[in-house]
Amino acid sequence: MAADAAARVPTFADVRAAADRIAGHARRTPLLADTPLDAETGGRILLKLETLQHTGSFKFRGAYNRLCQLDAVERRAGVVAFSSGNHAQGVAAAARLLGIPATIVMPSDAPRVKMRNTLALGAEVVEYDRQRESREEIAARLAAERGAVLVPSFDDPHIIAGQGTVGLEIAEQSQDLGLRPDDVIACCSGGGLVGGTALAIKGLVPSARVWSAEPAGFDDYRRSLAAGERVRNLPGGDSICDALLAPTPGELTFEINRRLLAGGVVATEDEVRRAIAYAARVLKLVVEPGGAVALAALLAGQVDARGRTVAVVLSGGNIDDELLRDVLA
Amino acid sequence: MAADAAARVPTFADVRAAADRIAGHARRTPLLADTPLDAETGGRILLKLETLQHTGSFKFRGAYNRLCQLDAVERRAGVVAFSSGNHAQGVAAAARLLGIPATIVMPSDAPRVKMRNTLALGAEVVEYDRQRESREEIAARLAAERGAVLVPSFDDPHIIAGQGTVGLEIAEQSQDLGLRPDDVIACCSGGGLVGGTALAIKGLVPSARVWSAEPAGFDDYRRSLAAGERVRNLPGGDSICDALLAPTPGELTFEINRRLLAGGVVATEDEVRRAIAYAARVLKLVVEPGGAVALAALLAGQVDARGRTVAVVLSGGNIDDELLRDVLA
Repeated sequence: MAADAAARVPTFADVRAAADRIAGHARRTPLLADTPLDAETGGRILLKLETLQHTGSFKFRGAYNRLCQLDAVERRAGVVAFSSGNHAQGVAAAARLLGIPATIVMPSDAPRVKMRNTLALGAEVVEYDRQRESREEIAARLAAERGAVLVPSFDDPHIIAGQGTVGLEIAEQSQDLGLRPDDVIACCSGGGLVGGTALAIKGLVPSARVWSAEPAGFDDYRRSLAAGERVRNLPGGDSICDALLAPTPGELTFEINRRLLAGGVVATEDEVRRAIAYAARVLKLVVEPGGAVALAALLAGQVDARGRTVAVVLSGGNIDDELLRDVLA
Repeated sequence: MAADAAARVPTFADVRAAADRIAGHARRTPLLADTPLDAETGGRILLKLETLQHTGSFKFRGAYNRLCQLDAVERRAGVVAFSSGNHAQGVAAAARLLGIPATIVMPSDAPRVKMRNTLALGAEVVEYDRQRESREEIAARLAAERGAVLVPSFDDPHIIAGQGTVGLEIAEQSQDLGLRPDDVIACCSGGGLVGGTALAIKGLVPSARVWSAEPAGFDDYRRSLAAGERVRNLPGGDSICDALLAPTPGELTFEINRRLLAGGVVATEDEVRRAIAYAARVLKLVVEPGGAVALAALLAGQVDARGRTVAVVLSGGNIDDELLRDVLA
């Protein structure tokens, strides 16, 4: 990668600094051990409950870490972001806490719960047609018009470092339990969560293997890791995992993940639906499709947990009623 | 009350002893602060997530505290309990951990998830007809036949003390957050959870007001507290709160609660359904009807939270798919 981009790749120290910045603002979410998943998989499973994070997903971490570093002039001009909904809510919530105007570009078919919550957090929402318009162009135009700061959803060092606090907490909370993760599985779209998590985990538990988990048809990260270069998803695919539809790995995230990840795993739509139902029925947790992919891959045996300690990130819980009802039918 | 009964009423010291016994076996469940409930109610709401306790409800605490004190002869003879399902699972799980045979008398119309889980935990289940048969008689007969120990679901000092660890943790975890509860609301059937919780809370935070929460039509505890004596529910009523159908307060629990409780609050079936939906949509938590009554009473304004710190116990999450789907419709 170019030297200027390489200089922007965050490090473990950046994750530590992010943890200090978000302390007292983001929730230190529970790491749940001793669930029926142990008997189910033959391993010792640790669940990181980012479903209980503010706004119902991990995205608040990176958004707060990014926005709290804006200066007074930038804060007045406001921020623009594009997102199917979890980054939207994370940015909107962080912006509201910091008194920053936020404009979010969202697909018109985003889950209604995400659209509603983003509006309720005080953000302006600009809708676009996911099949015909470019959210990147719309967001860039809005940012230029308003002199606002564009807040990327993954390919930004502060966003990656913020999401990495998930990994930091997994390592620390595992240690509190007298455990050390052998594997860590995190849901993956552009790779910010898994990349930041890998920075923290490999910094504290170098022996651990970190895996990206993606929905079938959107496994650009798995294929990119295997190929050693960034490849794209085939256009036109669709998935219930609305949060995980990024077309290709981020430049910065891939620079991290190609070095640090053990590989990528994939879950089918059926496996994701089963994981959502399992979470509700057995774990008593509401998890959205994109947030359940790592659990789905675990339950499908994509990562062999037998005799191992495996941390799994449940990354978000913003699911529409209709879909949750359908999954439980 | 009679002198022999009075001598059996547990104390705060018994709750402390129970906490030592269950440590490392029961989960220290999260106490969740800073949720959207604060804006909703104008108070500072602390949610005690017993939905995440082993077996999906607080009942494991009391059951383990009771069973771990059985001697070798009693353990071999086994235990008998009756329950619509949460005490059933709690006893079954504790019995399995301790290698004790368990027989549970359950109504044939118990939620299927509770029946299934009790069986999966290795207990023998004996069904009875809730409208025509007496579970007390069936359980007493089974216990006599087998020389087994009958494990009551609430009116037992070790059960009450075990459930009281919920209150102990609320007080300790509030302090960790720099907070002190002004009010504590716990769901109430026979009064074991709220009684044990009151012992702990009043022991550590004497100024706090502790409230029982019951479903409409089954507010025997509220009426008993008001009357100063144990009164019964009218026969023939029904409620979606299958876990909260005890006909009258326990003798031991009432001796505690008449001294320590501020009073009782009640939630209608509609309010309970709204609370279950709120928990799933906003909090990302699966809560069963009986486990949502305290939250329902809070959301309905039965306890005025404005400007106060209010701890609310979400006491269980074992809800059938059909009901959860219906509530989300």
